[in-house]
Amino acid sequence: MYNKQMTGLGKKRSTIREIFEYGNRRAAEIGRENIFDFSLGNPSVPAPDCVNKTVKSLASDFDSVALHGYTSAQGAFDVRKKIADYINEKYSAPVTPDCLYMTCGAAASLTICVNALCCDRDEFITFTPFFPEYRVFVEAAGGSLVAVESEDGTLQIDAKKLESAINEHTKAVIVNSPNNPSGVVLNRKSIDALCNILRKKSEEYSHPIFLISDEPYRELVYDGQEVPYLINEYDDTFVCYSFSKSLSLPGERIGYIAVSPKLHDFADAYAAVCGAGRALGYVCAPSMMQRVVAACLGQTSDVSVYKENRDLLYNGLTKAGYECVYPDGAFYLFVKSPEPDANAFCERAKKYELLLVPSDDFGCPGYVRIAYCVSTELIKRSLPAFEKLMKEYK
Amino acid sequence: MYNKQMTGLGKKRSTIREIFEYGNRRAAEIGRENIFDFSLGNPSVPAPDCVNKTVKSLASDFDSVALHGYTSAQGAFDVRKKIADYINEKYSAPVTPDCLYMTCGAAASLTICVNALCCDRDEFITFTPFFPEYRVFVEAAGGSLVAVESEDGTLQIDAKKLESAINEHTKAVIVNSPNNPSGVVLNRKSIDALCNILRKKSEEYSHPIFLISDEPYRELVYDGQEVPYLINEYDDTFVCYSFSKSLSLPGERIGYIAVSPKLHDFADAYAAVCGAGRALGYVCAPSMMQRVVAACLGQTSDVSVYKENRDLLYNGLTKAGYECVYPDGAFYLFVKSPEPDANAFCERAKKYELLLVPSDDFGCPGYVRIAYCVSTELIKRSLPAFEKLMKEYK
Repeated sequence: MYNKQMTGLGKKRSTIREIFEYGNRRAAEIGRENIFDFSLGNPSVPAPDCVNKTVKSLASDFDSVALHGYTSAQGAFDVRKKIADYINEKYSAPVTPDCLYMTCGAAASLTICVNALCCDRDEFITFTPFFPEYRVFVEAAGGSLVAVESEDGTLQIDAKKLESAINEHTKAVIVNSPNNPSGVVLNRKSIDALCNILRKKSEEYSHPIFLISDEPYRELVYDGQEVPYLINEYDDTFVCYSFSKSLSLPGERIGYIAVSPKLHDFADAYAAVCGAGRALGYVCAPSMMQRVVAACLGQTSDVSVYKENRDLLYNGLTKAGYECVYPDGAFYLFVKSPEPDANAFCERAKKYELLLVPSDDFGCPGYVRIAYCVSTELIKRSLPAFEKLMKEYK
Repeated sequence: MYNKQMTGLGKKRSTIREIFEYGNRRAAEIGRENIFDFSLGNPSVPAPDCVNKTVKSLASDFDSVALHGYTSAQGAFDVRKKIADYINEKYSAPVTPDCLYMTCGAAASLTICVNALCCDRDEFITFTPFFPEYRVFVEAAGGSLVAVESEDGTLQIDAKKLESAINEHTKAVIVNSPNNPSGVVLNRKSIDALCNILRKKSEEYSHPIFLISDEPYRELVYDGQEVPYLINEYDDTFVCYSFSKSLSLPGERIGYIAVSPKLHDFADAYAAVCGAGRALGYVCAPSMMQRVVAACLGQTSDVSVYKENRDLLYNGLTKAGYECVYPDGAFYLFVKSPEPDANAFCERAKKYELLLVPSDDFGCPGYVRIAYCVSTELIKRSLPAFEKLMKEYK
């Protein structure tokens, strides 16, 4: 009666959501202050002042019909112009307003790109660990997701494994740096290997293999880590950007796709993006928020809070005996489960009111994701609980 | 290289957009005040005060992290509660917060419902004239759209034609009352015939045939016309609502799906809606706007402007010799082309700077759509141009 794939997706709540809702129930029982909820990647730092200031000034001074009216499907031209100028200046990338397509956030950017590209039997490659919705988006578009294992310990790209995973059906490779769920930033060696392999394989199969860069965490990097702008590294690139994390407004659903102007048949590619946006029901990105993000380009929430959290948590957990992947960015710590089954470990953690996400859905079993976009004070209070939990394994 | 269907959709600009952009070019040539642009269904009346007032008060007083943070995928519970209470009170319909799913506007509501329902070879019926994106949404979901001709002159439902169009593959019927592009409101006789046929045919084929009610124009009705609430009329109903037109904020992309609690296997249906929203990349509806619409329930833009426009235009055009379908709602007038080819008529109208939309894409050739969501003064000035245009046919 109903579409089985969709019913299945709707019934199988994501593990993250399940844990988050368990947290809500538990908070009602024993008080929010007594649980350590590390389940959700919801920014804990408020939006920078410019966001609400711009919201208020637009609502006061901007013509209401224009402010809340349709923009063109690609997004308001002046908004795209400002973003293109910003990208040009910051990354020296040859992006024009006509390369940009405003979206309802990163998930929309991804579904639109995947639907624009996906033809029959196409394969999309990504690297473990990966955001579980990649599989949902690719399969809903009729493609299949191929997960390539990252290098053990560093989670950088394993060039040999990537190369052997590519075949004639490979349509695109999805990268996510800084990464959810590990916080790892792809280093120069990974990026170079990736681009060289894609160039070689595109030639071998006589059709471009596209690169989709999912980068909502671009600005959340610590210690001056470089995040190369991939349009400058590889011609056939789509950048899927979102302001959700940098401006702390994930609920507002605002982002964009930057289609590289050097892409094979750029006009067709951009048309396919517009067509996919249309077919999926995205009429335009939220109009007021388009103007808000354009006014706040280059600003971010106070990222130093996340850095402090990362340092506290990484140092505290390694000291307590946990094996952690060192995260250069995002707000996630990826921790090896002390027992092979991360689900069992997460259940045990609940005894100490620690809500962690097992890594199975990220395509990389045996780990847990800790989302440290919480208050620094909560992290401090949680460390003794982590210590007690580890004692069970000693 | 790219998905052909999507590239095609992106390249084939909608006729409405083409005419709108012609209007922009012409305005640059001879001045905006000298053209009569009736092409776009963009509300011309500003949002009611409560919209910008609520925006400002939320940006000032509401916790920023909560205001701009993710809501649950279905929408914030308190928002759904307020909307459910409003629906219950206004229509005595047994809708609870758990029947509601907040969306990015009517297009998103429709794509989500269609994807939730569509299985292999499914057919979706709608009535002429119809919003052209219905075909795009249904075909992108893998279904096919079947257009049933409405009664000539009144554009009410032709029961016999509907009955003979239904077969074992019919999954759902999409209605749109008040209608875009005709402004027609389905009367009691049409609604009763529709529901009786759907009940009978559901029984005959031993599976429910669903009703999808696309109703962004629900509040835009004149002279106290009744628009029955279809959840009260037929059990297997999905209501696709949008605040775009009632609150004049089409660019903000905010609406909801109300899944009838009396639906066959309600839990599966609601899960399929959630799953489709997820698969299409809709993480949640824009969070601040969810709260804005909840604070403005029951309010509308100043609809009396549209009524004045309708009266002026309907009376003026019929007096000038045009044959018009009487519109009880929306802000569209559907006018019979004085020559068989509406495209030729629209070209001729351009001589008088009248920008009208030919009805071919609405599945009902031989008419034009006039979007009267323009200033009343523009309508007054346009009437002599319409008169001159008609003289060419006399």
